[in-house]
Amino acid sequence: MYLLRYDEVILKGKNRPFFENKLIENIKSMAKLKNYKIDVIKKHTRIILNGEFENDFPSKIFGIRNYSPVIEVDADIDKIKQEINKLIKNINFNTFRINARRITKDFPMKSIEINQILGKYVKDEFNKTVNLENYDLEIGIEFIKDKAYIYTKTYKGLGGLPYGIEGKVLSLISGGIDSPVAAFLVMKRGADLTFIHYKTTDEILKKVKKLVDVLNTYAPKTLELIVEDHKELIKNAVINLKELNREEWTCVFCKHLMLYRASEISRDINSMALVTGESLGQVASQTLKNIYAENYGINIPVLRPLIGFDKLEIVNIAKMIGTYDISISVKGCGCPFKPDHPITNAQLEKFLELRDIVLKKIPNSNEFFEKNSC
Amino acid sequence: MYLLRYDEVILKGKNRPFFENKLIENIKSMAKLKNYKIDVIKKHTRIILNGEFENDFPSKIFGIRNYSPVIEVDADIDKIKQEINKLIKNINFNTFRINARRITKDFPMKSIEINQILGKYVKDEFNKTVNLENYDLEIGIEFIKDKAYIYTKTYKGLGGLPYGIEGKVLSLISGGIDSPVAAFLVMKRGADLTFIHYKTTDEILKKVKKLVDVLNTYAPKTLELIVEDHKELIKNAVINLKELNREEWTCVFCKHLMLYRASEISRDINSMALVTGESLGQVASQTLKNIYAENYGINIPVLRPLIGFDKLEIVNIAKMIGTYDISISVKGCGCPFKPDHPITNAQLEKFLELRDIVLKKIPNSNEFFEKNSC
Repeated sequence: MYLLRYDEVILKGKNRPFFENKLIENIKSMAKLKNYKIDVIKKHTRIILNGEFENDFPSKIFGIRNYSPVIEVDADIDKIKQEINKLIKNINFNTFRINARRITKDFPMKSIEINQILGKYVKDEFNKTVNLENYDLEIGIEFIKDKAYIYTKTYKGLGGLPYGIEGKVLSLISGGIDSPVAAFLVMKRGADLTFIHYKTTDEILKKVKKLVDVLNTYAPKTLELIVEDHKELIKNAVINLKELNREEWTCVFCKHLMLYRASEISRDINSMALVTGESLGQVASQTLKNIYAENYGINIPVLRPLIGFDKLEIVNIAKMIGTYDISISVKGCGCPFKPDHPITNAQLEKFLELRDIVLKKIPNSNEFFEKNSC
Repeated sequence: MYLLRYDEVILKGKNRPFFENKLIENIKSMAKLKNYKIDVIKKHTRIILNGEFENDFPSKIFGIRNYSPVIEVDADIDKIKQEINKLIKNINFNTFRINARRITKDFPMKSIEINQILGKYVKDEFNKTVNLENYDLEIGIEFIKDKAYIYTKTYKGLGGLPYGIEGKVLSLISGGIDSPVAAFLVMKRGADLTFIHYKTTDEILKKVKKLVDVLNTYAPKTLELIVEDHKELIKNAVINLKELNREEWTCVFCKHLMLYRASEISRDINSMALVTGESLGQVASQTLKNIYAENYGINIPVLRPLIGFDKLEIVNIAKMIGTYDISISVKGCGCPFKPDHPITNAQLEKFLELRDIVLKKIPNSNEFFEKNSC
C-alpha cells in the first residue's frame, strides 16, 4: 500500500476537485495500460494506492510530489505501537524520530503528544535514542479520518500537473537526445501529447517508436505518433536551393517546413502548440537568427522547454526518464541534404525573398532524390 | 589566483577561438563594471584569473564550468612538493589522493607517475593514507606549459555560453518571481538582454530596477531597461471590453498587447526574440488556449524557458541567483483591471472577432482611468 502526496501549492486558486479527479482518473488509466490491478482511493488530501504493480509505478505519475509505502492501521495508539514494532524490528538504526501528522483532525491527540508517546515507546522497547535533527530512521504516521498510515521511507515523485489537464500539443520528435526530454517536460506541465516524426530511415523510425513507448510509461493513454516522409516534405526546397546555389539555406527551410507542416497537423487535431527540443546555441542551426527565420509565419506557439538548458542538463534528464540509451543507440547516416556550411545567421529579409522560389513545386522531383539517399 | 575551466563539449563543431575570446572579453568587462583590478590570461584550455575581486566572481561568469583557487609554481617536482606542503599543513585530513593532469604535455612525466611521487611524499611527510575512492582531501595539480597549478577545492560554475554570444533578445520583466529567472536562463545560453517593463506603480518599477541590477551582476555590460506605461498600453482594450461586457478577456488582451508592443520594440533594437516567464498551468491565464490566442500574430519567436518548470523549481533558481527576496519584497496593489473571472479557455475565433473592436482607439480614455487606479 502506498500513500501518494500531491502538491497543495499548485492548487491555489485552481479548481482543486478538477485536479484531483484528473489525477485519480490518470492513475486508473495508467494501471489499465500496464495491466496492473489497483485500488485507488482519495482520502482528504492524500491518495491511497493498493494492489499489484511495479514498485516504481508511483514515480511515473505526473502530479505526485512524493510518496511512501505505508501500513494502514486503525487510528489507535496501541495498534499503532504494534505495527511500528513489526515494521522496525528488523531495521538497523541507533537514532530515530517520530513524525506524526494529522491530515484530518479526527484523532483526539495533537501531533506533539503522539510524537512523545510513540517516541517513548520506541526508545524503551528498542533501547534507541531520539534525535530530531540527525536521525538514522524517521517513523512517519499520517492520520486520516479513523486510520493511521505508518511509513519509514518517502520517495520523490515527478511533480508537475496531471497528464492532459492543460490540453493538446504536437511534439516534434527526431530520435535524438533532446526532443524526448522536451516532450517529457511539457507532459509534466499537463500537456496531452501527440508526436510527429519526419521519417528519414526505417531504423530511426524504429528508434523513435521506442522513445514514444518510454514516454508512454508516464501517460494514461496510448500516445499517437504521426509519421510523415522527410524527403517528401523538403524535396522542392532542396532542388530549388540547389538550382539557386543556395544550399547553405537547406537546414533553415527544412526546419521551417517541419514547423509549418506541424502547424497544419495541429489545426487538424486541435493541438494548441508545437513542442521542439531546441536549446539556444547548442548546434549550428540553433541560433537566434535562424530560429527567427524558421519561426516566421508559424501562427501557433512553439514551446521550446529546453531553450535555457545546457547539454549536460538535458542528458541528465534523458537518463532519469529512460530515453538516453535509446537516443544514442542508433546513429542515422546523417541527413544526406545537409550542406557543408549551413547558414547560422539567416537574415529574415533574405529568407522571405527566397521563400516563394524555394517552396515552388517541382515536377519529377522524386527522380532527383533517388540519387541522393542514404 | 583562480583556474577557470570551461566546457569543451559545447565547443564541438563550434568556433572555439570565438567562444574563448568572447569569454575573456566578458570577464574583463565584468571586472571593469565591478571595479575589480584583474589579470586574465588564456592558457591552453584554461583561463588564469588573478587580481583583486570578490571570491564569488568566478561563479558569476556564464561559460565557466567550474573553477579552483590555485597556487602557481614552476613545473618542477621539488617546487611542487614545497608548495603542497605549505598548502596542506594546516588542513585536517586523514585520507587523500593526488589528481595530476597534464593539460599540455610539456612536463616529461606521465600523470600516473606524478600521482605516485607526490602521493608518496604526502604519505611520508604527513603520515596520511592514500585512498583513491574515499578521501578527505584531493590535491589537484594541472600542468600547463612550464607551470603547475595546485588546488584542493573545485567549485561549480554557472555553465552555459559566454554572455551575448547568441545575439539580442527582449525580456519582459514584471517584478514577480518568474520573469527574472526566465531572463537568467536565456542569458545563460548566450543571449544579450534588454528588458521591457510595463509600469504600473513607482514601487514595482523600483523593484524591477533592483532585479535588473541583480541580473546585471552576471553581465559584462549595463543592461538596458525600457519602461512603458501599462495603463497607456491597455486603456483602449479595457474600456472597449467593459463596453462590450467582455471584461473576462482583459488579461488575454493585456498579454497580447504586451507581446505585440514588445515585438515592435524588438524590431527597433534588432532583437531576435522575446522572453517571458510563462510556465504552463501555473496561473489561471497560462493555459495553452490563452497562450495560443495571446501569441496570435506575434511574428517574432517568444522564448518561454520556464514552460516546463514547476513553481518550486523556479523558486530554487530565483534563490540561487539572488532575485527571490527582491521579487517577494513588494506586492503590488494587484492589477486594478483584472476581472473577477479571467477567461482560461480563450477561443482563437472569438479572440480574432473581438480584436478589431477591442483595439479601437477611444478619445478621452484617460478620464476613465483616473477613477480606476490603485
